[in-house]
Amino acid sequence: MPHPLFDKHRATLDGALQAIATRGYWSPYPEIASGKIYGETANADAKAAFEASLNKPFDLDQPGTTGRVGKETSPYGFALGITYPKPDIGKLIAASKAAMPAWRKAGVDARAGVCLEILARINKQSFAIAYAAMHTTGQGFMMAFQAAGPHAQDRGLEAVAFAYSEMSRTPKTARWEKPAGRGDPIKLDKTYTIVPRGIGLVIGVSTFPTWNGYPAMFADLATGNPVIVKPHPAAILPLALTVKIARETLKEAGFDPNLVLLAADDPEAPIAKELATRPEVALIDYTGGPGFADWLARNATQATLFAEKAGVNTVVIDSTSDGKGMLQNLAFSLSLYSGQMCTTPKTLFVPKDGIETEAGHQSFDDVARGLAIAIDKLLGDPARAVEILGCIQNPATLARVDGAAREGQVVRASAALEHPSFAGARVQTPLLVKVDVARDKVYTEETFGPVAYIVPTASTADSLSRAMGTAKAKGAITAALYSTDAAVIDQAVDAAADAGVSLSVNLTGGIYVNQSAAFSDYHATGCNPAANASLTDAAFVAPRFHVAQSRVPVAA
Amino acid sequence: MPHPLFDKHRATLDGALQAIATRGYWSPYPEIASGKIYGETANADAKAAFEASLNKPFDLDQPGTTGRVGKETSPYGFALGITYPKPDIGKLIAASKAAMPAWRKAGVDARAGVCLEILARINKQSFAIAYAAMHTTGQGFMMAFQAAGPHAQDRGLEAVAFAYSEMSRTPKTARWEKPAGRGDPIKLDKTYTIVPRGIGLVIGVSTFPTWNGYPAMFADLATGNPVIVKPHPAAILPLALTVKIARETLKEAGFDPNLVLLAADDPEAPIAKELATRPEVALIDYTGGPGFADWLARNATQATLFAEKAGVNTVVIDSTSDGKGMLQNLAFSLSLYSGQMCTTPKTLFVPKDGIETEAGHQSFDDVARGLAIAIDKLLGDPARAVEILGCIQNPATLARVDGAAREGQVVRASAALEHPSFAGARVQTPLLVKVDVARDKVYTEETFGPVAYIVPTASTADSLSRAMGTAKAKGAITAALYSTDAAVIDQAVDAAADAGVSLSVNLTGGIYVNQSAAFSDYHATGCNPAANASLTDAAFVAPRFHVAQSRVPVAA
Repeated sequence: MPHPLFDKHRATLDGALQAIATRGYWSPYPEIASGKIYGETANADAKAAFEASLNKPFDLDQPGTTGRVGKETSPYGFALGITYPKPDIGKLIAASKAAMPAWRKAGVDARAGVCLEILARINKQSFAIAYAAMHTTGQGFMMAFQAAGPHAQDRGLEAVAFAYSEMSRTPKTARWEKPAGRGDPIKLDKTYTIVPRGIGLVIGVSTFPTWNGYPAMFADLATGNPVIVKPHPAAILPLALTVKIARETLKEAGFDPNLVLLAADDPEAPIAKELATRPEVALIDYTGGPGFADWLARNATQATLFAEKAGVNTVVIDSTSDGKGMLQNLAFSLSLYSGQMCTTPKTLFVPKDGIETEAGHQSFDDVARGLAIAIDKLLGDPARAVEILGCIQNPATLARVDGAAREGQVVRASAALEHPSFAGARVQTPLLVKVDVARDKVYTEETFGPVAYIVPTASTADSLSRAMGTAKAKGAITAALYSTDAAVIDQAVDAAADAGVSLSVNLTGGIYVNQSAAFSDYHATGCNPAANASLTDAAFVAPRFHVAQSRVPVAA
Repeated sequence: MPHPLFDKHRATLDGALQAIATRGYWSPYPEIASGKIYGETANADAKAAFEASLNKPFDLDQPGTTGRVGKETSPYGFALGITYPKPDIGKLIAASKAAMPAWRKAGVDARAGVCLEILARINKQSFAIAYAAMHTTGQGFMMAFQAAGPHAQDRGLEAVAFAYSEMSRTPKTARWEKPAGRGDPIKLDKTYTIVPRGIGLVIGVSTFPTWNGYPAMFADLATGNPVIVKPHPAAILPLALTVKIARETLKEAGFDPNLVLLAADDPEAPIAKELATRPEVALIDYTGGPGFADWLARNATQATLFAEKAGVNTVVIDSTSDGKGMLQNLAFSLSLYSGQMCTTPKTLFVPKDGIETEAGHQSFDDVARGLAIAIDKLLGDPARAVEILGCIQNPATLARVDGAAREGQVVRASAALEHPSFAGARVQTPLLVKVDVARDKVYTEETFGPVAYIVPTASTADSLSRAMGTAKAKGAITAALYSTDAAVIDQAVDAAADAGVSLSVNLTGGIYVNQSAAFSDYHATGCNPAANASLTDAAFVAPRFHVAQSRVPVAA
């Protein structure tokens, strides 16, 4: 049964299906925050709308509201003052469950069409999402636009494409005809129905609420599951806008808007545990600390858990033919969003005897100092620096920086910067600390925020062994290697596969180890403690549905 | 890199890939226990070999053996007296882990080729597996041959095909080329590696050790994970033979035989909990009671759990145009292997005012009595009866039959039968009990074994609601419907999809609701409490591996 929204977005879906199979560059959502693309007044309109939304109730009409919650504060230094519906959890669950049967019956094509229409409408609101993301995550505006906007939309579409592809592998019907010796064959007509698992709970993170949330939301929706979005209490607005757009689209398309519900809470009265352990919740997607991930694994045993937790991303520096490019690239990776990315390098391993470069031998200290200088240069212009650094999302991160400085020898001190436009903004430059190789308790634990450790090792073999050992034991989402030696590269590629970590080799230009491109890069593998799932592979979507069949003998 | 075993079995793999996509009838392993197919002396040789193996140590050369275990007793009335290696679990885990890296590096094709070679060799040993299954599960010989032999092999191959298909969706390499305005595009070369999750633990069941075990074993192996097989202490032999064949094949193919290890135990010293909670164990497949499945979910949180538990399969009788065929079909379903199948109907719902048939109206009691008579007729010849019934696997099942008879009005009494060939065999015919509709505690709980309840309901709508409500609340793997009314059939198909249960409609000939054909029928859905996984869908294989990638800039 063709659905008009499926037909409307068919080319986009086909493009996505092609892209996840071939894994080249592809995106239907322009990442350039240009008025030519998004409308000449789009930026100004979104900014005005954001400012007008402050200190007011967020307009979201959904069932089971018992009051208001919402205590978001912009890392740029002011309270948002926006309030959201405070949910009665029982009523939210009931509304979610009630929406499920008709959504299942709508079928694969209709659901994909509606998901793509939601994404298309979200894309049009990219500037609005950008301001919401900027003032909750603390990202610089351009990063907020791209990461919370088109790049997150790409990840959502990727999940729809994977879900569509997996659901399409089962035919709708089959004729089963078994030979029966000399008699007539036994014939059965079979029908196969894609059936959803149950309610999908998406527990958001404060740093990348949409980029980490959309894959789960759209994987759930596409496979027939209703979604309850529980944002991080510090970053509700980007997901509230998303839920609002999704509900409007569903309603217009003739479906129950309660297929997507917001469950916001305040930090002092968290509701995630109650939601997660409800028997109706069959799928949980969580991004955040490993402590709560473990709690979910032990307590929400009725649900399938997709969790991205924490890890220690490493860089192994062996040798380079472009020392300047290497240091510039690393300086940017360490500075971007003040290291508050789950893909930011945390520990750099360099042989204590130094490395070979195009300009000859460099000592360990040359490399360390070179990196510090590259960071200084990158952040030399404060106006540009604040755009790269953004703000510190959580004040607790600042205390961590102070602690880290005492763990070794400070190669580059962290400093607060004043933001030219926002008086109270928490801007902080990266700290680089040289740590003795024996103090592995320091550099094999995640220090979230603008902190990196540089560690002198016995050799590159020692570096690789420590980097991959840490990934296996503590988890890692990214790893980087700089080497001009093909044998070292081969070794590292193999060791990284063994440790289940994505490896970037010799990045010197405009691509950074932190970046993960939808349709091509797998974000996390699910094969080390950093995550039990990957964005997006088949394992991310396949467990969200199953197949129910019926069979009936064919009349003779 | 083409592997000779991949080339050798390529046609079989292609056939399986085609079959899982089109879901028609297909099987490469003949289900007919014929000397013409398996060799004229195959049966006699296997029987002699089985008898010669009794009261001796089972010859299995594997590391970490600290003694002997094994206390299997044939349900046909004699102790097997076979002993197996008693494992040092630490050493077993270490050997399993050590085998993993080379198996990952062998790649998708080589692993598939080796898996298919193992299956081909198991197929040749189908008679040996049949005697082992018969004298551990208690199945009649022909059923043991088919279910533990070719049908289990089909299920194993199906898992390999699904795994191969899922692993093949990611290309080995990709060129990523992102436009960069007027500058040169950014180019990265990417490589993708399939990486396994870790050790796969397969916890066997006493009734269908190979049929339920092979999908997990071969899904794990094909996706690069080593396997430790922990058989049920009452049914070790079929899996020990399997492990032996797998180890021999791996060794001959140049791989570490420790990729497949046996971890046998005695009932009084179970080792499953210790194995399941080892951090190296990443995948657990379990078939058995819901109590231990829940324990695994709460305690083995480091692993992904695929569990088939228990449920209450139902039959809704609304109307029929072939009353005799219906009753014969149901009589066989209730009698086969004395109801010790997870697919056996347990509760039959019939309107209290009776049903319409081709021979006119029949009262509830007519239907109930008719079914009792059909069972009597089916089992009238004791020599034939024991082949259908097999033996009661677990003596505890007999006590359950006595208890069930006191729950309502006995329509057909259960009786012990003497086996013409085995003096001590536990043969027991099915009990049929009429239970009042209000006593739902009785008929909505699984009574494993030769027990069925027949329940008078207000109407077919009431029957359907109770049947599907039970499936949702307590789980069900199968459901059956008899109706001549297209609207009732449509309703039931929809309600069964909603309850996540497979529905068979109007089976009257040589296909029974208990039967599930590989490549076409999904066994369990994973969408109700009977199981959290399905044999075999994408969700059964996709979480067993992930993708690790590396990327490197393309030199300008």
